[in-house]
Amino acid sequence: MTPHDTASRMTAWQVDPAGTRPGLRKLRLAVPIPAAGEVLVRLGAASLNYRDLLVSRGFYGATQRPVVAGSDGAGLIAAVGDGVDPARIGQRVAGAFFPDWTDGPVTAARRARSLGAQLDGVLAEYVVLPAQAAIPVPDHLSDSEAATLPCAGLTAWHAVTAAGLQPGMTLLLQGAGGVSVMALLFARMAGLRVLQTASTADKADRLRALGAEHVLASGAGSDWATEILALTGGLGADAVIDIGGPGSLALSARAVRVGGTIVSVGFAGDGPGLDIRQIVGRAITLRGITVGSCAMFADMNRAIAAARLRPVIHRRFSFDEVPEAYACLEAGGHVGKIVVEIADTEAGAASSADNKGSEP
Amino acid sequence: MTPHDTASRMTAWQVDPAGTRPGLRKLRLAVPIPAAGEVLVRLGAASLNYRDLLVSRGFYGATQRPVVAGSDGAGLIAAVGDGVDPARIGQRVAGAFFPDWTDGPVTAARRARSLGAQLDGVLAEYVVLPAQAAIPVPDHLSDSEAATLPCAGLTAWHAVTAAGLQPGMTLLLQGAGGVSVMALLFARMAGLRVLQTASTADKADRLRALGAEHVLASGAGSDWATEILALTGGLGADAVIDIGGPGSLALSARAVRVGGTIVSVGFAGDGPGLDIRQIVGRAITLRGITVGSCAMFADMNRAIAAARLRPVIHRRFSFDEVPEAYACLEAGGHVGKIVVEIADTEAGAASSADNKGSEP
Amino acid sequence: MTPHDTASRMTAWQVDPAGTRPGLRKLRLAVPIPAAGEVLVRLGAASLNYRDLLVSRGFYGATQRPVVAGSDGAGLIAAVGDGVDPARIGQRVAGAFFPDWTDGPVTAARRARSLGAQLDGVLAEYVVLPAQAAIPVPDHLSDSEAATLPCAGLTAWHAVTAAGLQPGMTLLLQGAGGVSVMALLFARMAGLRVLQTASTADKADRLRALGAEHVLASGAGSDWATEILALTGGLGADAVIDIGGPGSLALSARAVRVGGTIVSVGFAGDGPGLDIRQIVGRAITLRGITVGSCAMFADMNRAIAAARLRPVIHRRFSFDEVPEAYACLEAGGHVGKIVVEIADTEAGAASSADNKGSEP
Amino acid sequence: MTPHDTASRMTAWQVDPAGTRPGLRKLRLAVPIPAAGEVLVRLGAASLNYRDLLVSRGFYGATQRPVVAGSDGAGLIAAVGDGVDPARIGQRVAGAFFPDWTDGPVTAARRARSLGAQLDGVLAEYVVLPAQAAIPVPDHLSDSEAATLPCAGLTAWHAVTAAGLQPGMTLLLQGAGGVSVMALLFARMAGLRVLQTASTADKADRLRALGAEHVLASGAGSDWATEILALTGGLGADAVIDIGGPGSLALSARAVRVGGTIVSVGFAGDGPGLDIRQIVGRAITLRGITVGSCAMFADMNRAIAAARLRPVIHRRFSFDEVPEAYACLEAGGHVGKIVVEIADTEAGAASSADNKGSEP
Repeated sequence: MTPHDTASRMTAWQVDPAGTRPGLRKLRLAVPIPAAGEVLVRLGAASLNYRDLLVSRGFYGATQRPVVAGSDGAGLIAAVGDGVDPARIGQRVAGAFFPDWTDGPVTAARRARSLGAQLDGVLAEYVVLPAQAAIPVPDHLSDSEAATLPCAGLTAWHAVTAAGLQPGMTLLLQGAGGVSVMALLFARMAGLRVLQTASTADKADRLRALGAEHVLASGAGSDWATEILALTGGLGADAVIDIGGPGSLALSARAVRVGGTIVSVGFAGDGPGLDIRQIVGRAITLRGITVGSCAMFADMNRAIAAARLRPVIHRRFSFDEVPEAYACLEAGGHVGKIVVEIADTEAGAASSADNKGSEP
Repeated sequence: MTPHDTASRMTAWQVDPAGTRPGLRKLRLAVPIPAAGEVLVRLGAASLNYRDLLVSRGFYGATQRPVVAGSDGAGLIAAVGDGVDPARIGQRVAGAFFPDWTDGPVTAARRARSLGAQLDGVLAEYVVLPAQAAIPVPDHLSDSEAATLPCAGLTAWHAVTAAGLQPGMTLLLQGAGGVSVMALLFARMAGLRVLQTASTADKADRLRALGAEHVLASGAGSDWATEILALTGGLGADAVIDIGGPGSLALSARAVRVGGTIVSVGFAGDGPGLDIRQIVGRAITLRGITVGSCAMFADMNRAIAAARLRPVIHRRFSFDEVPEAYACLEAGGHVGKIVVEIADTEAGAASSADNKGSEP
Repeated sequence: MTPHDTASRMTAWQVDPAGTRPGLRKLRLAVPIPAAGEVLVRLGAASLNYRDLLVSRGFYGATQRPVVAGSDGAGLIAAVGDGVDPARIGQRVAGAFFPDWTDGPVTAARRARSLGAQLDGVLAEYVVLPAQAAIPVPDHLSDSEAATLPCAGLTAWHAVTAAGLQPGMTLLLQGAGGVSVMALLFARMAGLRVLQTASTADKADRLRALGAEHVLASGAGSDWATEILALTGGLGADAVIDIGGPGSLALSARAVRVGGTIVSVGFAGDGPGLDIRQIVGRAITLRGITVGSCAMFADMNRAIAAARLRPVIHRRFSFDEVPEAYACLEAGGHVGKIVVEIADTEAGAASSADNKGSEP
Repeated sequence: MTPHDTASRMTAWQVDPAGTRPGLRKLRLAVPIPAAGEVLVRLGAASLNYRDLLVSRGFYGATQRPVVAGSDGAGLIAAVGDGVDPARIGQRVAGAFFPDWTDGPVTAARRARSLGAQLDGVLAEYVVLPAQAAIPVPDHLSDSEAATLPCAGLTAWHAVTAAGLQPGMTLLLQGAGGVSVMALLFARMAGLRVLQTASTADKADRLRALGAEHVLASGAGSDWATEILALTGGLGADAVIDIGGPGSLALSARAVRVGGTIVSVGFAGDGPGLDIRQIVGRAITLRGITVGSCAMFADMNRAIAAARLRPVIHRRFSFDEVPEAYACLEAGGHVGKIVVEIADTEAGAASSADNKGSEP
């Protein structure tokens, strides 16, 4: 058989926002067929993001119903549609979170469709992607490592580059989640001094080992903004990558220097939110960003390859353990990314698609 | 006498944040003497800003006590200190709001001192300024017109340029105050399409006459954000200059396109404030700015000279009517700036300083 | 018949770089058929560029042989391939010079194929384009006006925006060719002061009427660089858009201020070329640009629509007079663009393709 | 005695462009007195630049005649003029090459005066500087190391940051001179991949040890541009810092990718120069830069301090051996900087100025 054989079937994890919590369902679907300009990717691994929890609960706006879950995956190109160079078959790629955002600034149209929400995602044995959204990944990475890149990795890269800092400047990062750990790696590569918060001593040790210059306790009642001012001669950090949103922005705005930048990438936390008087009064630039373009993805991969960076993986789950992986993510406590291993693509793309998994 | 004569005295309006409301006091002071690197300016006119009300009531942070009021003034250089080119005597200048911010990005140190707050201001017959903060003004402007530039004019210029738009893009402005009217003039000069809100039909007519393409009602209960979306094919404006802060930011964030920019210059209003989910979810850049540098002032003046722009003056008061001018500002209802005429510098700088005004 | 009817034929002007000078040949070809992701455009008009002369003589590097001539054309979408919204049929568009450069920075791959050189061009009744390279044009423009935009218009837009100037700054333009005249219009829209050279008094008058503040003689032996310095207080223009290359760069480098920008868009002239000591010694940024991306084209069109700009057309030729149009271009002396009228698309797209023209 | 004692004298090396080659003269001068806004620096070390050879031969445009030689020096603030914080006495600083360029873009006025040319320089026991041009240097550097920064260090910093690259991109550097070696250190700190040319195997080894990924032979007849293309998949380097000017620009333009950047900082070499067709045809941005601002200097120092970078010193000479140091520079063959040790400021600023050196 070939992937184009319409009789081919694959195992996939679907979510339906109207379903019961956590809304994950394992089932057998037809292997999709790449149309003109598309490629079929045989997935080796996927990684999870907080956003996947939101999708599974219907908190992520309008999505396809049902939809194959998961935005972040990597594997091998197994087949190509018309107009795509057949030499790409066998190429190892990751899928772009926003397949329609190839380059240039973000627009509503470019962000309208994301994998695992408006488009079928990567918690499946196969996924179809537009050819330009199947991004070649660095050779030194495994599928599991490459699968951490599309959302958390690229968000971190975009955030670090959007901070607009020069070597020697200070960047404040928050916590030890997937984005913040990748941001730490990228920031160190760019010659930045990193100040980072952590909720436990173990995480703090880990962040220091990865290059954070100072790690500050982020527990309840902690006032790391005052500590940051003390560490920076009263001036504040040159930039902050804010993860917590309502729960951290007020502190971030106190911890950044006059004229500094806050790159805001999340809003997971609860709290008083943002007082615009801080933003204007301290001449802060607050940049909200969401993931990034295919071109940014390629730029990031060049950096990862050049420094032979390795994404930090907290724990790996088998393809049967997707619900357990979701639960692990929800429990928190991880440093780095949670990965689902789907297939061993290193063994070659020749294995057929239809002899894997079973109907749930 | 010469300005250096220590016996010279001048009339000035002082405020003391601990004083009674509105805290303005007219009195006689010694004419200040320019030190090395400074110039003495004989003021022809001053203009008022909302910030002057805040200073007079002690709502403007740490200020000198007492302090000569007023940040925005224009006049002639009457004397120079050591190291300043004597050829500058007679030059018509306006004072920079932040005299220490000559060029480059804003920093805490560069913004630490402003006229009329941490430094004696311009509601006086004379003021001393660092030489580089006495900015030559366009020849076609009167002192009254030039006096509108240091705070409102430069804030508008900085905001329009910080919006980062290209000709043909849309800029949303709010109201008919000093900053928004100047921003309208600069935006039109830069080839932008301007959408603007106004609280009355008269103001709307005035803004249209100055070049606004659409004017939207901003009264209570109006939902101009929805109107902006309708006017822009559902996309939103490319940028917004937000004046109202808590009272307008939520609407501004709905009215700007995905990936657009909000330049935030004020926080006069009341309201629910900013929901960070709008900023991140729509990938908005929010830039808080405060006035601008001496270099930006010079750039603005080139633009004003090239287009022979004329700032819009709402009403002029005599130097004895400063309290009435403050009251007029507080009452609102103006389109453009409120000016205090101090002296007729056109008649020459030769008239002495000590035969004007009287002790209150 | 429909455009998809393989029996349909059309008239086209081909060039073959190995052919006799000027290498133009009128003949009948099959109407091309849009593949997936492509559109078929029925052309209303084309405009010529100096580059078309180079192509016809084999001076333009590797091209398709033979190739339908002409890069700049506008008309109506007559048919769409798979995956393209059929609602676009009837939309008025111009073709992008580099159809593969959709957005983001220029790369070798994005510039590898241009219309009328590596791809069949627009001196034909029909052309096939990638859907994203068929750019909707402003409603107020005729096909002839819109046909001036893809190369000369977009080069001018790109050059003016790449100069990075603010309103009130000075831009030096050279001559009255297609790029310089469009650059004058865009620069004026952006609030710039324009200084421009011209080879005749008539051209100078025309440029003044279009908004140039000063026009300087560019004839043999003229030293307009010294005049520019005199006009700018000895400082030089803030930026220059250089057209002449070897023939003008030395003067451009003398005429631009220390720290200024030269945007270099052509190399038609002869001369001593560039002395790098001028570039380093005066801290000049020299930016070589070639046309622009589809995204820039769309931005330009917003500006043209907002200001209702009208490109300047020097002379119109009928579709039978293409050789005469080339000769007119080569002769010089034009102010603005030379246009070839192909069909009256205003009369509707319904007219068939195969009853026009005749075999040469 | 104190430095303000007008009887104080110091040893200095003067040049007079009209003098005999190499034009250096050792003599005794009065210790200069800091005016308002100035500081007096007791120099510990100076470093030489190619430019110093040009000045000594009258090839550097208009200079003060005679003038104390040398632009790059470091030492301790020994006294301050009026208006300067006395707490700065004892601070270790380097002098800015262009003392009037504090921040913002370069202008003719900001570059009009440089140390050792239009202003007395640092090959002396003392120099007077504007307070803002006495830049605090990183604590971990000796005077000799800090003395390498003002011209070569800052040129390298400015060039690397002006290249506008992201981590993982490739930067091509030329040779093992002072600027290129510092640029290598900064580029590595910024996460860039460095390709570098070298004229000898020893230099190549040294550059590899400092972090260059590939080193290419630059001897006569070598075609490193072709090698760069081979190393970059045919695309070319993302940016080049060009040192040789006429002797290297043609190769640089072939070695940089379409749309790439050449930062041009020198013009020492001989050769055919620049063909503008390469610049336009490959859409290259060529940025001529000269040293940098005081603000850039402070930014650089933050980077040097954060990474504890150590400038590379080729050889040290005593203050009596300045002519030998010039000869060493002229001979070439150095990797890194040539330093002149003037005084041991580590031993304290208390030692008097007038008991050093002797009349020549």
